[in-house]
This record gives sequence, structure tokens and C-alpha cells, in this order.
Amino acid sequence: SDKPVLFAGPCAVESFDICMEIGSTVKEIAEKHGFSYVFKASFDKANRTSSSSFRSIGMDQSLAVLERVGKALNVPLVTDIHESYQAAEVAAVVDVLQIPAFLCRQTDLLLAAGNTGKAVKIKRGQFMAPEDMQYAVSKVRSTGNQNVCLTERGFSLGYHNLVVDMRGLPIMRQFAPVVFDITHSIQQPGGMGGSSGGQREFAPFLARAAAATGIDGFFIETHPEPAKALSDGPNMIPLAKMDEFIAMLKEAWVLGRKFENFKVN
Amino acid sequence: SDKPVLFAGPCAVESFDICMEIGSTVKEIAEKHGFSYVFKASFDKANRTSSSSFRSIGMDQSLAVLERVGKALNVPLVTDIHESYQAAEVAAVVDVLQIPAFLCRQTDLLLAAGNTGKAVKIKRGQFMAPEDMQYAVSKVRSTGNQNVCLTERGFSLGYHNLVVDMRGLPIMRQFAPVVFDITHSIQQPGGMGGSSGGQREFAPFLARAAAATGIDGFFIETHPEPAKALSDGPNMIPLAKMDEFIAMLKEAWVLGRKFENFKVN
Amino acid sequence: SDKPVLFAGPCAVESFDICMEIGSTVKEIAEKHGFSYVFKASFDKANRTSSSSFRSIGMDQSLAVLERVGKALNVPLVTDIHESYQAAEVAAVVDVLQIPAFLCRQTDLLLAAGNTGKAVKIKRGQFMAPEDMQYAVSKVRSTGNQNVCLTERGFSLGYHNLVVDMRGLPIMRQFAPVVFDITHSIQQPGGMGGSSGGQREFAPFLARAAAATGIDGFFIETHPEPAKALSDGPNMIPLAKMDEFIAMLKEAWVLGRKFENFKVN
Amino acid sequence: SDKPVLFAGPCAVESFDICMEIGSTVKEIAEKHGFSYVFKASFDKANRTSSSSFRSIGMDQSLAVLERVGKALNVPLVTDIHESYQAAEVAAVVDVLQIPAFLCRQTDLLLAAGNTGKAVKIKRGQFMAPEDMQYAVSKVRSTGNQNVCLTERGFSLGYHNLVVDMRGLPIMRQFAPVVFDITHSIQQPGGMGGSSGGQREFAPFLARAAAATGIDGFFIETHPEPAKALSDGPNMIPLAKMDEFIAMLKEAWVLGRKFENFKVN
Repeated sequence: SDKPVLFAGPCAVESFDICMEIGSTVKEIAEKHGFSYVFKASFDKANRTSSSSFRSIGMDQSLAVLERVGKALNVPLVTDIHESYQAAEVAAVVDVLQIPAFLCRQTDLLLAAGNTGKAVKIKRGQFMAPEDMQYAVSKVRSTGNQNVCLTERGFSLGYHNLVVDMRGLPIMRQFAPVVFDITHSIQQPGGMGGSSGGQREFAPFLARAAAATGIDGFFIETHPEPAKALSDGPNMIPLAKMDEFIAMLKEAWVLGRKFENFKVN
Repeated sequence: SDKPVLFAGPCAVESFDICMEIGSTVKEIAEKHGFSYVFKASFDKANRTSSSSFRSIGMDQSLAVLERVGKALNVPLVTDIHESYQAAEVAAVVDVLQIPAFLCRQTDLLLAAGNTGKAVKIKRGQFMAPEDMQYAVSKVRSTGNQNVCLTERGFSLGYHNLVVDMRGLPIMRQFAPVVFDITHSIQQPGGMGGSSGGQREFAPFLARAAAATGIDGFFIETHPEPAKALSDGPNMIPLAKMDEFIAMLKEAWVLGRKFENFKVN
Repeated sequence: SDKPVLFAGPCAVESFDICMEIGSTVKEIAEKHGFSYVFKASFDKANRTSSSSFRSIGMDQSLAVLERVGKALNVPLVTDIHESYQAAEVAAVVDVLQIPAFLCRQTDLLLAAGNTGKAVKIKRGQFMAPEDMQYAVSKVRSTGNQNVCLTERGFSLGYHNLVVDMRGLPIMRQFAPVVFDITHSIQQPGGMGGSSGGQREFAPFLARAAAATGIDGFFIETHPEPAKALSDGPNMIPLAKMDEFIAMLKEAWVLGRKFENFKVN
Repeated sequence: SDKPVLFAGPCAVESFDICMEIGSTVKEIAEKHGFSYVFKASFDKANRTSSSSFRSIGMDQSLAVLERVGKALNVPLVTDIHESYQAAEVAAVVDVLQIPAFLCRQTDLLLAAGNTGKAVKIKRGQFMAPEDMQYAVSKVRSTGNQNVCLTERGFSLGYHNLVVDMRGLPIMRQFAPVVFDITHSIQQPGGMGGSSGGQREFAPFLARAAAATGIDGFFIETHPEPAKALSDGPNMIPLAKMDEFIAMLKEAWVLGRKFENFKVN
């Protein structure tokens, strides 16, 4: 595409009001800087480190909020699914089904997502070589659904740490468009003892680096008050910083796309 | 327990005959060397690298075979589940529900398994710090089911490679009994391009090492002709080697248990 | 500085003629694109995987060639030292002493380099956390020599593989200016069995990414015919591609410096 | 050999008295349990994280102490060298020259050690694939000196952490006898900010595991009061625990050697 895609929103569907506050602000920013915007919020945090962490306001209620937000803002929606039975029900509401990183090898989930006919966005597992993501793409495409993209969010570099291997971006782009998930790439899994920490200070550096390689889109979790977000607060971009952040991202993206086909061989 | 547990069988339920051939042989070996035996076979290979690999002879048929094998041999059964809807149906047949490594953080799956009241065996994710497995254990125990064990099967050491961090065994034993999965610890994920390779030659070394730390059981996939197994052939122990292998394992296990409480602090 | 630095040349001092061919070409390119140029060539490949690989045409002869090249081109010179006794002798010829990555914790070598009064360029060890490079810098500065810079060249991601953790660049810039070593970051140590392989195709991607984070310089090995280079051929940039490559690098560097102080906190 | 070798002593030559206290105690323990004993102490800690840490009481004085200890106890000595000029001088005093892990690819150092005719003990680099250690062995053997052994001490598993890959032990034994360095395998490099931490509590587990694979010897740093040791205290075995520790090690070693040639292929 000739415009970068921006998947952004709160981590979880906390409430209609917070979704609207974030979604309307980001929509305006995305338009201003020439991004295609997709509103993101999870209806269920299904794999929190500890079961004492916030999961959801409920699947039905979350999907209802998502639907209202999509209509009110007139933007497409993305959310993740965790088991194959959810695919059809969620696809009735959203435009893009996201496959979580831990689940990127679950054949049934990928097929169920593909069979909905909606776009499928697969996150690279923290344990997957970039080239092996082609098999996840093939599983979805075997349903006849060609609308698949991949997402980078870091590989396990020892315990409680992830590293973004920038070589993985051009490798995965051989198979499908690639989105860079800024928020989860700076996560520290389980690093706070019972919940995951984050390193928000590295977001601008990693985002520019990934953009400069030449990619197709970005995924960002944002919140007016990250410290009060019900999940992923430590690695979110504050909503008040999003305008400047997206402006910067656009410049790096333009540079990346300009040189994406530069070869030294 | 005062006896080590041996979870062993073919990787997948290939047929009743092959299950009986393997199960009856291993049962005898286990008794001879003083192991508690649990027959293992998967009813579905739900996360193969590529969708062109063998998955299953069908869930219903596989469960039926498993049930016949369990009755014919009078041994308990273990098999893995991949989505929460499978828990109750599978628990009607088997004694131990195994949670695959990629899925060890899926709260719903852990709760569904716990709620069956059957024993739950959780494999450590290839991306999980050993100490973080306590949260997976807690999720199961939150259902009131205290019968949980953990399984080591290697951590991502770069791409297409796993390493067994022996420190993880005593760390995880603080939370639950620990089983060492010999077969998958020597897997090379995606290492053959579209399917996983294996390093059978290291099985005896890793098995003795893990046993010598002091653990509770072992998990081994075995087959009369590994090269013809429908999955995991490159890392299986040939059935004809199992007697000698288990004899060796027993000696290492006895040594490990003798010194398990030795402290230098 | 307001100009990026370009350390570039062949891997080893192969001959005066090849050094002049490379050095004169790169000098012109550097000037054209606004880089400060430092000619690089090693007088000894002291840590080849195997002892059957090319090491050197001899230390004395190499230093003599380096000196002639520096004078003929009127450019500063950088080369690496491996033992502390070499520091003074080499410092009589070159302007920047480079400390190899494996040796970045060798106190005597760092002190000997610092004591020459020449600039000291320390490569991050493939085993060093970025923040721990501050101690290497401090060792050099303890001699009173404040002219130190650091170089990123990848961290061990399992066997025979390196990953560039882009977070390391801003972390290390807290301690000293940071150079990105493009050539060795795409090396595959020992990956060809007895010698190191490389992935030249990733050079443009990693180079743009690193530049976009905001750094101070670049290190590139180049050769008119990489396949004939006596070392590091698989990861070199062909000399004929350098003009375009440096032009691209400049754009990415300008972007990186524009946003280097952008913060989301 | 039919006896395991025990390399043990304080980390550094702190004083003649402390060396004698440790050496005489360990010598007796080694004899009691059937180990060949080699007294170990470093004359210089040449690669401390920070230059403010203890390095040495001086090379000459340290070597003089080592010599006195060797004669008084009538035991062979091992110490490490860091630059090639030290090889001959140190070889005049000790029986085994140890090549530090960071330096295991330094050709000149390996050749200088080999040329002394003394035994050469090479530690695996924290960045080296086990099979690549064959080249380090070849470098020493190219001098005509066949008396080489390898030592395992952990591979970089992300930052500030090492993992012992037990597969590496049989891989390296194809090239030379293998010693397991218990003390440094539980080190946490740079993990205490400016100095390295350690995890003494894992020493018995890793030691039993490594021994059970089937190896040739062990390396242990010990001290009557580890908390007062001038380096490596957090990962040392207290001297008062050494008798029990070595007794345990012996049992695991016997088991490992019994099964070292067991094959499943």
C-alpha cells in the first residue's frame, strides 16, 4: 500500500468512554499524518502472567463496545482471538483478527481465522525464527483467504527480555506485509514478578529503526494515563505524545520505503 | 513420590496396534525398573510447523483408541489439549491432561484443565523463565485442583535451537513436581525447513544430567521404527533401546534423589 | 560532532595497492556525502576461527603500508590491537586504536591503549550487556585519555548467530559516542565450519535501522572484489556499491540525529 | 584417565597462608575421594568488570607464592595467562596454563601456551558454539603440544546470564578431555552493576548434571569465607562444604563414566 497502517488503541476494552477518547484522538492524528487507521482493543487478556491481573469486562460487553466505537468513529477494528470458537463471533464485529504471538503455530486457530474471510494479522512468536512465519501465513492462505499480515514483537533473548532482530522484518516481508508492534517489543515478560514490565524509553529508537528498514505499518498501545491502564501501562505511549510520535514515525517510514529495495549484492 | 513416573508412548495415536505394541513393551520395562507408567499419545498434532504435516487420525477415533489401550494395558493415560472446549471430553478418557508449551500462559485452557479434576501436566514455554511457571501452576490450583506437575522441554537459544537450563529443574520443583521431557528437549524447532529436526544422539546425556539434578519423572516418545513415525521421529528413542535406556535413567534418578537436598549455602 | 564518522577500508592490509584503491575511492565518497573519513585496515587477524586462515602480511610491513596510505591520502587511520605491547608501536602510526570485541574487558589492553593518548575505539563484546560497556570506557578514561568511542557489532543469539539489539545504541551513547559496525553485525561466527560466514543482504536494513536511532558513525569493510578478500568477504560491501550505500546512510543518519532526543516519558 | 581431575583453589592468589589453608584441605579431600588434584589460583584478575575491583598482589609475588605452595603441598599448579608474553614466565612455575574464555580465539596466546610444552586448558568462550572449540584445540596442537583440555563455563543466555548447554560436553569431548567449571557456570556477568554476581545455590545441581553426562574433571573455586574472597565470592563453594561436595561429585562422575558410551542410535 502507499500509506502506512496504524493499528492503535488501548490495550484492553476498558470502557466505551476511554475507547472513544483514545480512538477519536488517534484517528485525527492518523489522518493528519497520512496513516490508514485501525482501532485496536483486546476483548480479553487471555494470557496474563498471573491470574490476579485484569482480564476483561466480558467478551460480549467488550465486543459491543468495540462495535459502537467502530461505528461512532467510522474506522475499522482489530482485536485478538485465542481459541478457534471465537473466530466467527468476533469476525462479526471486527475487520482484522489478530493471532497472538504465543498462538502463531496453532493450526486450528489460524484456519478458523482464515475461514472468516476477514483480514488476519499474525504476531511472530517469541520463539519463532522469522523465516518460519511463512508456514503460519500458508495455513491461513490454505483457506483461500489471501488477506494476511505479519507482526514483529521481539524474540526471547534470555529470560524476561525480548530483542527485535531487524533482519526479521525484510525476511517476513517476503511472505506478507509486516507491521511493527512497538508496544510489545519493549515489554519485559514476567519481569516485574507476576506481571510484565516495559521500557517505554526505548519506543522511539526501536520505532525509527524498524520504520527505516522499510515496513508496512505500526501497532501502538496508547492511553491518556498509562500508569492507570489496566494492562501494559509500562510500555504504552502516552496519548498526549502520539501526535509528535506519529509525525516522527512518518518521516522514518518514508525513508524506509524509499530504500526498501536497495541491494548490495 | 518414591517411584519415578514414566510418561511414554508414540508421539501421535497412529493406530491401535502400534499403540499396543509400544504400550505393552514400555509397561513391562517400567515395571521391571520400578517406574510408574503412564501411556502417552497425542490425539492431534495441533501446532505442526507446516500444515502439510500429519495431524491426526481424528479426535474421536484417537480418543477411542486411547481408551481401548488404557483398558487393555490397565495403565493411566496422558494426552495434550489445545483449546478449552476439549478439556471435558478428553478428561472423560484420560487421567492426565497435558498443556503444550506454547499454551502454558493460556488462562482459559489452564482453568478448563483444572476444572476437570484430572491431573494437569504443564510444559514450560520455550519463552518462559523457570520461575514464571509458578503462575501457570497457580492458575490450575485456583480451580481447587492441586494435582499439577511441570515439564521441562528446553528454552529458545537463538533460532531453531533449544537449550535445557538445568537450573530450571530445581527452580520449578519449588512449585510442583517436575518431569523432564527428553524427546522435545532435543528437538530443533523448524530446523528442517517446514518441519522440526532432532538430535537423538544427545538424549542419553541430557536425560542423565536432568535425572542427576533430582526430579520426579520423565517423558519419552518411542517407536519401533522412529524413521517411520508420523511425527518427531528424529528425536525419538527406538523402542528396542528403551530397556537399556530406562535402566540407565533409573540409576541417574536414584543418584539425583539421594542428593536433591544437598546445599552449599 | 556535526558530521558522521566513516571508518572504512579492507578488512586486512592486503597490499599497498589495494589499500590505495579502496582508500582513495572511499575518501572521495565520504567527502561527497559529508562524512569524516578514517581509513581502516587490520595489521593482523589475530583471532580467526581456524589457524589455517589468512592472518597478516606481517605486523611491520602492514604498519608501513598503513603509514604510506595515511600520508598519500592525508586521512587518519584506525587499526586494532590485540596485546598491550602493541599499543605504543601501533600508536606511532595510527590515530585510532581499536579494541576487538572479544578483548573489551582486558584491563591491560584498555589501559595501554588509553596511555598512548590516541583515540580509543572499543567494540562491544558479543557477550556484554550494553550498559556494562561503561566500565570499559572508564578503564580507558582512568588514564586521563577522554577520547573514547564505542562500537556495536552484535550480541550472541544462540550459536553461529549475532543479533543487533538497537536498544544498545542509545544505552551506550550515555557513556561515549557510538559507531555501528555494519560488516561484523551481519557476520555468522564460525558459521561456515572453520571460518565465519556473513549475510551481506541484510547490511542496508541494519545500517538504516541503526542510523535512524541516532548515532555518531559507521564502520564498513569494503573491497573491489569481496569474494577475493582475504577475510570477511561474505559480509563486505562491494566497493562499487559504496557511493549509493553512503548516500543512503547519510539520509538515515540525518533523520536519526533529528530525533535523537525525542522522548515519550 | 581413570581418575577425575580436580582443579581447585581460591580465585586469586590472596596470600601464601590462605593458599596453604585451602590447598592442604582440598588436597586431602581429593586424595580421600580418588581425584587427581591440581591447585588453582590466578596471579592476575585481568578482566574484572570494573577497574576498581581487586586485580592482584602483583605477578611476580603471586608466582612466587604459587611456586611455594606447589612445593609445600607437592601438587601440580594451574593459573591463567592473558597475553602471550606471560606464557614462558608462567610456565616456569606452573604445570597447566589456562586460557580464559574471552581469549579462547586469540591465536598468539594459544600458540605461546602450546609452545611452552606445558598442559594447556582452554575455557569455552561465552560466545562460542561447542563444536567451534576444535579450532582452539588445533591451534595449540599445531605447536606439537598434544596436552590440551577444554573447559565448559556457560554460554551467554541474554544479558547478565549464562546457561550450561549439557550437549556441549560430549561435543567437546570429541576433541579433547573436558573439565566442568562449576564456579563460573553459575556466575552472573556484570549482574551486580560493576561486578559479577553468582548463584551458589545451583552449584550442586549443575555439578551433578555435568558429571552425569560423563566428563574428565572439575574446576571449583573455594574459600574458607567466600564473603571475604577478593573475587567470585558469590559463586564459590565454602571450604567447609568441599568434603561432602566432592564425595557427591565422585558418585555422579562414576555414573557418568559408566554410561558415557551409551548410544541410542
